[in-house]
Amino acid sequence: MKTIGILNGPNLNRLGKREPSVYGADTLADLERRLTGEAAALGVKVECFQSNHEGALIDKLHAWADAGVAGVAMNPGGYTHTSIALRDAVSSIAPIPVIEVHISNVHAREEFRHHSRTAGACVGVIAGLGLDGYSLALRNLAARK
Amino acid sequence: MKTIGILNGPNLNRLGKREPSVYGADTLADLERRLTGEAAALGVKVECFQSNHEGALIDKLHAWADAGVAGVAMNPGGYTHTSIALRDAVSSIAPIPVIEVHISNVHAREEFRHHSRTAGACVGVIAGLGLDGYSLALRNLAARK
Amino acid sequence: MKTIGILNGPNLNRLGKREPSVYGADTLADLERRLTGEAAALGVKVECFQSNHEGALIDKLHAWADAGVAGVAMNPGGYTHTSIALRDAVSSIAPIPVIEVHISNVHAREEFRHHSRTAGACVGVIAGLGLDGYSLALRNLAARK
Amino acid sequence: MKTIGILNGPNLNRLGKREPSVYGADTLADLERRLTGEAAALGVKVECFQSNHEGALIDKLHAWADAGVAGVAMNPGGYTHTSIALRDAVSSIAPIPVIEVHISNVHAREEFRHHSRTAGACVGVIAGLGLDGYSLALRNLAARK
Amino acid sequence: MKTIGILNGPNLNRLGKREPSVYGADTLADLERRLTGEAAALGVKVECFQSNHEGALIDKLHAWADAGVAGVAMNPGGYTHTSIALRDAVSSIAPIPVIEVHISNVHAREEFRHHSRTAGACVGVIAGLGLDGYSLALRNLAARK
Amino acid sequence: MKTIGILNGPNLNRLGKREPSVYGADTLADLERRLTGEAAALGVKVECFQSNHEGALIDKLHAWADAGVAGVAMNPGGYTHTSIALRDAVSSIAPIPVIEVHISNVHAREEFRHHSRTAGACVGVIAGLGLDGYSLALRNLAARK
Amino acid sequence: MKTIGILNGPNLNRLGKREPSVYGADTLADLERRLTGEAAALGVKVECFQSNHEGALIDKLHAWADAGVAGVAMNPGGYTHTSIALRDAVSSIAPIPVIEVHISNVHAREEFRHHSRTAGACVGVIAGLGLDGYSLALRNLAARK
Amino acid sequence: MKTIGILNGPNLNRLGKREPSVYGADTLADLERRLTGEAAALGVKVECFQSNHEGALIDKLHAWADAGVAGVAMNPGGYTHTSIALRDAVSSIAPIPVIEVHISNVHAREEFRHHSRTAGACVGVIAGLGLDGYSLALRNLAARK
Amino acid sequence: MKTIGILNGPNLNRLGKREPSVYGADTLADLERRLTGEAAALGVKVECFQSNHEGALIDKLHAWADAGVAGVAMNPGGYTHTSIALRDAVSSIAPIPVIEVHISNVHAREEFRHHSRTAGACVGVIAGLGLDGYSLALRNLAARK
Amino acid sequence: MKTIGILNGPNLNRLGKREPSVYGADTLADLERRLTGEAAALGVKVECFQSNHEGALIDKLHAWADAGVAGVAMNPGGYTHTSIALRDAVSSIAPIPVIEVHISNVHAREEFRHHSRTAGACVGVIAGLGLDGYSLALRNLAARK
Amino acid sequence: MKTIGILNGPNLNRLGKREPSVYGADTLADLERRLTGEAAALGVKVECFQSNHEGALIDKLHAWADAGVAGVAMNPGGYTHTSIALRDAVSSIAPIPVIEVHISNVHAREEFRHHSRTAGACVGVIAGLGLDGYSLALRNLAARK
Amino acid sequence: MKTIGILNGPNLNRLGKREPSVYGADTLADLERRLTGEAAALGVKVECFQSNHEGALIDKLHAWADAGVAGVAMNPGGYTHTSIALRDAVSSIAPIPVIEVHISNVHAREEFRHHSRTAGACVGVIAGLGLDGYSLALRNLAARK
Repeated sequence: MKTIGILNGPNLNRLGKREPSVYGADTLADLERRLTGEAAALGVKVECFQSNHEGALIDKLHAWADAGVAGVAMNPGGYTHTSIALRDAVSSIAPIPVIEVHISNVHAREEFRHHSRTAGACVGVIAGLGLDGYSLALRNLAARK
Repeated sequence: MKTIGILNGPNLNRLGKREPSVYGADTLADLERRLTGEAAALGVKVECFQSNHEGALIDKLHAWADAGVAGVAMNPGGYTHTSIALRDAVSSIAPIPVIEVHISNVHAREEFRHHSRTAGACVGVIAGLGLDGYSLALRNLAARK
Repeated sequence: MKTIGILNGPNLNRLGKREPSVYGADTLADLERRLTGEAAALGVKVECFQSNHEGALIDKLHAWADAGVAGVAMNPGGYTHTSIALRDAVSSIAPIPVIEVHISNVHAREEFRHHSRTAGACVGVIAGLGLDGYSLALRNLAARK
Repeated sequence: MKTIGILNGPNLNRLGKREPSVYGADTLADLERRLTGEAAALGVKVECFQSNHEGALIDKLHAWADAGVAGVAMNPGGYTHTSIALRDAVSSIAPIPVIEVHISNVHAREEFRHHSRTAGACVGVIAGLGLDGYSLALRNLAARK
Repeated sequence: MKTIGILNGPNLNRLGKREPSVYGADTLADLERRLTGEAAALGVKVECFQSNHEGALIDKLHAWADAGVAGVAMNPGGYTHTSIALRDAVSSIAPIPVIEVHISNVHAREEFRHHSRTAGACVGVIAGLGLDGYSLALRNLAARK
Repeated sequence: MKTIGILNGPNLNRLGKREPSVYGADTLADLERRLTGEAAALGVKVECFQSNHEGALIDKLHAWADAGVAGVAMNPGGYTHTSIALRDAVSSIAPIPVIEVHISNVHAREEFRHHSRTAGACVGVIAGLGLDGYSLALRNLAARK
Repeated sequence: MKTIGILNGPNLNRLGKREPSVYGADTLADLERRLTGEAAALGVKVECFQSNHEGALIDKLHAWADAGVAGVAMNPGGYTHTSIALRDAVSSIAPIPVIEVHISNVHAREEFRHHSRTAGACVGVIAGLGLDGYSLALRNLAARK
Repeated sequence: MKTIGILNGPNLNRLGKREPSVYGADTLADLERRLTGEAAALGVKVECFQSNHEGALIDKLHAWADAGVAGVAMNPGGYTHTSIALRDAVSSIAPIPVIEVHISNVHAREEFRHHSRTAGACVGVIAGLGLDGYSLALRNLAARK
Repeated sequence: MKTIGILNGPNLNRLGKREPSVYGADTLADLERRLTGEAAALGVKVECFQSNHEGALIDKLHAWADAGVAGVAMNPGGYTHTSIALRDAVSSIAPIPVIEVHISNVHAREEFRHHSRTAGACVGVIAGLGLDGYSLALRNLAARK
Repeated sequence: MKTIGILNGPNLNRLGKREPSVYGADTLADLERRLTGEAAALGVKVECFQSNHEGALIDKLHAWADAGVAGVAMNPGGYTHTSIALRDAVSSIAPIPVIEVHISNVHAREEFRHHSRTAGACVGVIAGLGLDGYSLALRNLAARK
Repeated sequence: MKTIGILNGPNLNRLGKREPSVYGADTLADLERRLTGEAAALGVKVECFQSNHEGALIDKLHAWADAGVAGVAMNPGGYTHTSIALRDAVSSIAPIPVIEVHISNVHAREEFRHHSRTAGACVGVIAGLGLDGYSLALRNLAARK
Repeated sequence: MKTIGILNGPNLNRLGKREPSVYGADTLADLERRLTGEAAALGVKVECFQSNHEGALIDKLHAWADAGVAGVAMNPGGYTHTSIALRDAVSSIAPIPVIEVHISNVHAREEFRHHSRTAGACVGVIAGLGLDGYSLALRNLAARK
């Protein structure tokens, strides 16, 4: 059975507590529960990890690559706009497909959120569709051969 | 039954003929057939339109708004990076949700494709997931209340 | 009797329906009716045209030049900030005076609305005075020798 | 009877003497006489002030606000492109409407005249219509409720 | 017999009427007649098309590609500096060679004319040589195998 | 007894009248009274000056330097972001310490308020703490040897 | 009794050892001792934390928020100029007030220290006043209701 | 006998007191005395004026123009880099020649001193030659016909 | 008989040896032979010069101007993007027409090759047409009166 | 015996597995073994550390400084282009010499790798020489007095 | 007797022939003759050198330094705006004073002439005063101790 | 026996005389002697060349390529930051490896020294290690197969 990694970056542990008008009322636990259920329906399995540490996110991508995950849905939070190290980590696990997910529509927020440093190393990006973005990414990754 | 508009911009009529290493081998007709089928499965209906004319894309968004579409999946092609008029057209039909779709991962291509002028007026963006991007957008729009 | 062209660009057909907090509640038909009346009072005649197509706006400027209009009040909508082709069209009908009109105060909105690509080819600009901007432009053009 | 302030900034005391090909042959006194006449016809009264001192322009805006002017037509001259202090002065007298006026079409001149620092705090801008710009601003302000 | 497309963009229908100090006194009809004659001498045939509509230019490139033209000399007018859609249209008909032509020397005019968005997708550019630029492009295209 | 100068720039005479959501309800007189009291408690004396004139602010800094003030708390208002002359005035009275004070958090407002031209010549900056910023600056200056 | 967090970022553990001409001779332990004493005098309590890890700083802000701190004085060191993740962490604990503190006057140092990525999410900033900046921040936070 | 104006801007009243390593030990009075003597030797007369007020510098240029000065040596101090109003004042008294003088070599100082907003309206610039710059400007102006 | 100068800049002596995928297999001698032949057919004569020295290229332009050449086809190589001195040399021999030639399509290569510092002083540019670019330039120059 | 620190940043633990066309086939262990051998030959000792955590790299620099290393060869990986915190850490251990090493030639890769934020605090940089860059840095550091 | 070098860069050998409306009618020989005469009157001697070769200008600065010139008046022509090598040559002969001279007012010409790369290494700049600029530079250099 | 070229650019003939605090006390002759000795020890031979002429440096690279050098250590001095012609010369002799060497750490100096135009065409860069940089480059080149 294929495993899909669900990687959440800084402040996503605050989901539900943090700026609900931007990020909604569901918590990270809610999200992870939802994805676990959807994965089962799709015949795959998810492994979830959240950290506020850039290095821990990189470590986890490496570890998942070594463990043979089939793909990763990654929300790098604020590191999206600043981290070349994380981008390089995505490149370093090629050809494992990584999809970048943003809950809010970053293009409709502050100027500094309009550019992603990590997206260029990913296979694609889903932004602005709330938690459903993770589900759609999961669906796409699960369907890949 | 809800109708979802599928709007394709310049050069997408060349799908399958145009740079297949970037855009894949399926034609626009293939895409539209696929979405028509998926829509039926989701209990909605799609209406497809493609034009190379910026003005025609704007006209169609207005017309769809007047006709009461429930949402639009829009791939503005090259207008993505240059058209404020199209962005304003999206704003002008609020609150109808519009999802911007790109077949290729624009963030991994030329610098001038990294910024979208239209995305800020949309509810979200899906990029880099090939034709599946349209399907995921359709699924998200169909599920909205 | 002198004819003054009233040229409206993309999305201005949505006046009254579109973001009324920005553009007010009057429709394009209301505007054109008002200007027709004011023109009569000033001893001139207006000819009104709206299109969402950049090319159609250019075609109309050329046609009006050939037909001998005395001046044009032009609201290029979103093309204001992007269209060198439209700017060149204004230059191509010199010395017919063209006044650029914006309903909202573009300088108080998003950064990308602060610069006009077309204004440099016009004789002047009126922005932020609502529909009255058209009336003032009409008055100025009507009074020119 | 409503009072409208007419505020002229640096070098506008040189009107008629200064670069007549850009600014025309009328003097500041001519302008003020013309506006006084037009105001009477519109049932309002104008109060005119010119200074080369940024601080004096700010002082006058404050004083007019305290005196209850109904609106201001302001040509900030060279301060247009550099003065945040003047912009803040306009904001500080809100909601009194201030219209920015430029005699020449600043968008057709040097690059550094294409951006206004003050316009974002005004209700609108009229540029390039010569002294008629003041008259149109006066007419708009006089008609406001 | 090979066919070479001659594509003229916005405002080039005004040749001869428009700013003759910049663009010369010949009309578009003069140009097309001249090229028709030269083509005959070179043993090829030209097909000429002009439009002010970005979309119509794209449509024509597609149509010419389907019809098997051997090459295109294209003057995109103002779209040169703004249109990624047109650039993509050129890419979408590869490997048909497209040569970008400008009548005036764009590098000696306003800053915003110094950069071409379309040239990168063409095989080359000829600028500043007046109508002869089209003739030279035709000659080059006719000689290609 | 040491004297500390309290220098307020353009529009700060409008405190309490101007945009109270940004600047609070206290007036400049309230502020000056409060600082006079706090100074007494700290065993120093304050001298307060406000002007909308950039030149008057410079004149006052020079005069205070000649009079031997022990330090200055300066809120340059809109001149913060534009005035090299004021920056040079601060440098010209070195080594008298000048602390720049802003009532609002300039970093959370418009982009053009994020950079200070004067701060580099000051010893430090306090921003966003309301009128308390002046009190803290006073306290710091009073404690310097 | 209210608790105020004192958060110090990268390299501040080197205080006293590191570039004393820039940062002074006191150590981090000296600073924390001083603030502990001052807090007592103000009737509050401080909790101090230093880390070179961006993620650890974010973790601590979250933990303090959950623990109910009344405010935070935060010196993000080098992360000030690069970290959107830390900025988001500050936003994620709103409305707890966070004051950004810099020991040196960042505006008088290298260009890349002139802009703060984190300050926009804080309530204010104190820079250049040495260790006294922390004391003033503490005083301001302690006095908030 | 021809009169040459010597105009000194902000902070030049601090000459001799201000940053002597940059500006030297002579005072403004020393400078004016020196120039008065040199003028006599050249058969002309100087009139000297210094102000920290941008508006006062503009007023003086206007007054000197009305009084018929033969030329002006102007050191705009910090206004050099920010004042379009002063630049316009120089243009407004054309064709009276104005030479911009800087005591220090502005090109060897901070980046923001490398660009002059006023120089483009002057006939020339002398920078970095200390007080001798004024003498050389005087000599050049005195020799003009 | 008219003489046309053929000026080749740095590294063009390496033609045929250097990056043949970019510049083709013909050598500089081949090119010069070809142009000599074509010139004869056109009833003019070419004079060829290549140097890697910017100064030598300038010297040659001056010398050719003194010798009365009728025009110059110039490929400035890498100096295209950096040399104002060469640009000025072209201006200094006005009105002799100079056409800038590039073998490769500079607009399709690295960003730093997209802008020419010399083209603005030339009458036109031909780029991307291989060695044929020189032939076309020669043909255009030969035909000028 | 002198100790030289060998510090490797994010993703360098993937050496040999990661993009071998860019970084070569040797692993981090191979590198560390090689340097250990070379150090012995040079009469010094190396201590190696790798982490994906920015904070851990900073911690280690501090620790090595306290332990008295004679110098450090540091490859900051992706942090090179983004980390001011790491730059400050290098400054904070001055005067211990740090040499920045890059395996690939960063100047020949993406634009965002052309600028180093950390190099300005180091004594020098070696880039593009593969693993030999570490050896050369070691040799230079070992030879320093 | 002191020797002053007069160094003229590219295209200045064309003085009198080149764009006389910009540079005047005098030739380089006229200029050198004039300066030779003035030098004699000042009790110094000039040595003149012109070259279009950047390297030759650098060689000459070095040679003059070795020969003990007392100062240099240098007009670097187009190299002013591009040459760091020439700037370094000026620095390399410190403390010999070099004054940069421009015949025309570079600040009133094209944007790319507004910035000098060489001026920062010189003691000062004289621009826009025609050939008199050299005379004033000579006078200043002759008077230095 | 392999030959390695040692190429030194502008002002490096001033080594030892020029800014010794930046470049050290050794002369160019000292450097060349040192490298000659080291080469012998490595079983290779060096050929040294210095010129202030950009063209001469290019000529020499071409000549060395024709003569079959095994590699080049090149310090382009000031041309590093400006010369595309030199960069192209390096490309034109591919695949001969060229290592760029800088004596000082260019990243710790003026902003304009932080970017190299030539490095992208080289195999690598060594900066800031004094004359040892040449030795390390020599060692690396000598060891290449």
